[in-house]
Amino acid sequence: MEQEKFMRLALEQAKQAYEEGEIPVGCIIADENGNILGSGRNTREQRRSALGHAELAAIEEACNSKGDWRLEGCTIYVTLEPCPMCAGAIINARIPRVVFGAREENFGSCGSVIDLFSEQYGHRPAVYGGVLESECSELMRSFFKKMRE
Amino acid sequence: MEQEKFMRLALEQAKQAYEEGEIPVGCIIADENGNILGSGRNTREQRRSALGHAELAAIEEACNSKGDWRLEGCTIYVTLEPCPMCAGAIINARIPRVVFGAREENFGSCGSVIDLFSEQYGHRPAVYGGVLESECSELMRSFFKKMRE
Repeated sequence: MEQEKFMRLALEQAKQAYEEGEIPVGCIIADENGNILGSGRNTREQRRSALGHAELAAIEEACNSKGDWRLEGCTIYVTLEPCPMCAGAIINARIPRVVFGAREENFGSCGSVIDLFSEQYGHRPAVYGGVLESECSELMRSFFKKMRE
Repeated sequence: MEQEKFMRLALEQAKQAYEEGEIPVGCIIADENGNILGSGRNTREQRRSALGHAELAAIEEACNSKGDWRLEGCTIYVTLEPCPMCAGAIINARIPRVVFGAREENFGSCGSVIDLFSEQYGHRPAVYGGVLESECSELMRSFFKKMRE
């Protein structure tokens, strides 16, 4: 299944973040032909930047790849439900499809805390949550268990 | 008045964006002692990036200046009401005070389309809107008038 194929690539990015001591979140952006235009992982602690989320890195790379701030026709695959910053970036980039793995109850803004895409911004991506959810959640649980020890 | 002093600096950034053919939005971040940690202007068209908003550039620079993704104690001054991406970035950076100039009815997320800061994210910045509103609005109007001509 195509969604799972790209989510596995996003999980590889998340595992790399894990190895680097970062909350394990990874992201892939593919165009309508299945070409990967961007990828990213969480680098907040390394870069000491509030903007170090996986989705922003992938969107920046995809905009550079395409030479356009509009990512129409693309799908963004991310292991964790996007926060409001990243959901807002998805709106700004006009990405029409969002596929995520695990829900996130504190910041998740595609249905958990709020559903940003149901608001009147004039762009409403289709959202598919829960793809490879158990792998995505388990990686997060494992990371926080390691942090507590 | 301190708010107006920093907003005038944000307006200088906005005017630079205007000269570069960008929607004129500018931003300044200052710490509790009035030191400027970051500044930014809209560069979306030049950089061809959906992330090219003034606030993200200023937050990135301020995180670099401080060596921390947490911008506690800081105030962000921006000529236009932040969009959901930038309002979310303000939450992620834990910026406690937001001062903006003109309201933005299509994407503004500090009271216009939604009030993101009233949601349950565990961080609620204080917001002061309408500072130097007429100068900020007039710059926008002038830009869009020029674009139409």
